[in-house]
Amino acid sequence: MHTDQAFMARALELARKGLYSTHPNPRVGCVILRDNKIVGEGWHARAGEPHAEVYALRQAGELARGATAYVTLEPCSHHGRTPPCADALIGAGVSRVVAAMQDPNPAVSGSGLLRLMNAGISVQSGMLEAEARALNEGFIKRMEHGLPLVRVKMAMSLDGRTAMASGESKWITGPHARSAVQRLRAQASVVLTGADTVLADDARLTVRPDELGLNGELSALAERRPPLRVLVDGRLRVPLTAAFFQAGPALVATCAAASARDNYLSEGHELLAVPGSSGHVDLRKLLLELASRGANEVLVEAGPKLAGAFARQGLVDEYQIFMAPKFLGSGARPLLDLPLARMAEAQALEIIDMRAVGDDWRIIARPQIAPAAE
Amino acid sequence: MHTDQAFMARALELARKGLYSTHPNPRVGCVILRDNKIVGEGWHARAGEPHAEVYALRQAGELARGATAYVTLEPCSHHGRTPPCADALIGAGVSRVVAAMQDPNPAVSGSGLLRLMNAGISVQSGMLEAEARALNEGFIKRMEHGLPLVRVKMAMSLDGRTAMASGESKWITGPHARSAVQRLRAQASVVLTGADTVLADDARLTVRPDELGLNGELSALAERRPPLRVLVDGRLRVPLTAAFFQAGPALVATCAAASARDNYLSEGHELLAVPGSSGHVDLRKLLLELASRGANEVLVEAGPKLAGAFARQGLVDEYQIFMAPKFLGSGARPLLDLPLARMAEAQALEIIDMRAVGDDWRIIARPQIAPAAE
Repeated sequence: MHTDQAFMARALELARKGLYSTHPNPRVGCVILRDNKIVGEGWHARAGEPHAEVYALRQAGELARGATAYVTLEPCSHHGRTPPCADALIGAGVSRVVAAMQDPNPAVSGSGLLRLMNAGISVQSGMLEAEARALNEGFIKRMEHGLPLVRVKMAMSLDGRTAMASGESKWITGPHARSAVQRLRAQASVVLTGADTVLADDARLTVRPDELGLNGELSALAERRPPLRVLVDGRLRVPLTAAFFQAGPALVATCAAASARDNYLSEGHELLAVPGSSGHVDLRKLLLELASRGANEVLVEAGPKLAGAFARQGLVDEYQIFMAPKFLGSGARPLLDLPLARMAEAQALEIIDMRAVGDDWRIIARPQIAPAAE
Repeated sequence: MHTDQAFMARALELARKGLYSTHPNPRVGCVILRDNKIVGEGWHARAGEPHAEVYALRQAGELARGATAYVTLEPCSHHGRTPPCADALIGAGVSRVVAAMQDPNPAVSGSGLLRLMNAGISVQSGMLEAEARALNEGFIKRMEHGLPLVRVKMAMSLDGRTAMASGESKWITGPHARSAVQRLRAQASVVLTGADTVLADDARLTVRPDELGLNGELSALAERRPPLRVLVDGRLRVPLTAAFFQAGPALVATCAAASARDNYLSEGHELLAVPGSSGHVDLRKLLLELASRGANEVLVEAGPKLAGAFARQGLVDEYQIFMAPKFLGSGARPLLDLPLARMAEAQALEIIDMRAVGDDWRIIARPQIAPAAE
């Protein structure tokens, strides 16, 4: 049993290499074991390219016959852009398959394992399942609830402020924290911001590969699969000349008249009409739309108003707060625009992790009551 | 050398037992070593009682002759409430003395070690000095600068808020954090608060031994040596009927007319006239006065106005921030009343420590520019 776990841990390690590039697919790793020796390893790198099992089986070749396959996700049984991995495992003659978790898609969950069993293969599921789920939390949420995982990134001072009253805000945190934010962007399907942030900070929200702090292989994968940049601009206040638009194609979510669509299109951007009220886009509807387009993880990098709106509506799964060791003072801007009157209304959080990132600290916190799912 | 450090570490461990009770004296521990075996141990428990060296020498008895004494602070050479420890060590016939640090009092620093040397004893100083200094930082600051160490305790939400706009504020943090605050109070010479806090929260600022979470010996020592409770009440707004005054004798610092002094005296309290302006006590002058009365460590537990005043005047040595995992929202009260206009004015801090305390987190931060000493 102990050995089983070690090989699954290796498969998870391989899966993690896809952190920045498998969107909209999950990150998956596979190890083929024969006579207690690893004879094949594989991981899924990019949508449209072979799945982890295929790479591992290729490497194993004839040695796959009678071997054990460790996969971090139930092998698929349907024809997508690639043939079903369950068939590939059967065809290669493996005698045992260990999966970390079943497919989270309720429509197909279990069918891959069943197919293997029906072919006479010994099947086991649930090994290191928590670790496997953590790696694909956004994908799982999308499959189960039709919504992406929403991560809100904020940078604040020790006294909970994000900017001076004047709006002056650049570089609250240091280079290590900025590099960590770059990696958060690169792993997201979507980086989402608001008109206030783009107008005030001339923000571009791009991934800059040289700031990721990753090795060459992962940097290259991240560069080839940039996240979709989404601007929530209910009243279309951000001009097409803004650096945000100059930096590449973007999606603008608005509740303004769609008559402007062609202007955006001709510049390479998409204008998405989302219902809203008083000029505010319905954020839940926007998230549903993004999920329907395959978005697993949405990183929100916005000012207190938009971030506060996500918080008020219970749409946030996780806060990633970068805390700089300084006081900005009581006149400075708040972390979230979140007016509460009584202590009982306070948003209870669980702090998942807190650690130093250069001179700053990163706090990962999650709402104690999970955001309303569908 | 390695063994030397281990015995000094043991002496420091003994010294730490005095954390809650040696005021206004420093915490000191002593180990007597003979033939590589500990033959005597001692620590200073209370002012007026014997020093660490005396206890250790008593335990060692005749075995002290030719032994090595490890002391966490240079042995005293002057007659205070007890005879000089340097003489006691000489009289006992020890052949070697290792001190962690010299006496920080510039008037006597080095004279104890000199006296030992002149008696033919081998002397060494500076072993584990950083640890020894950390244990008596307030005492050292008072000796070197005539000011106490000022520690500001705050409780806040993850978004940097201390109370709702209504003032509702009780129990932001949980029982573990409250116990840690009790220990901070118990180790302080002075617990200092302001009229706003006493009026709004009916605060008493007492040490409650059963909430300290200490063993019986240390709890009893803490109970016998409660910190002086100091109320900054520039305009004498807090009535003598307040729970704060009912909880025991207190010192009130005011810039109001001293005519009220007798009322306070007859209730067992002291009224201290401190210069001030527009009804605000001059905090620096108050700290100088407290140091002259032997205060090594002052714990400030106050609202954003008074805590902000200490911060603005550069009087804070350390912030101890207890952070509850919740958002109180943008309408809630700020951590510090600290109006700053530009980012360049931001108070830079160094985060010394951050760790979980029950469900809450404790952050220890220090201003990067040390507060102006005298």
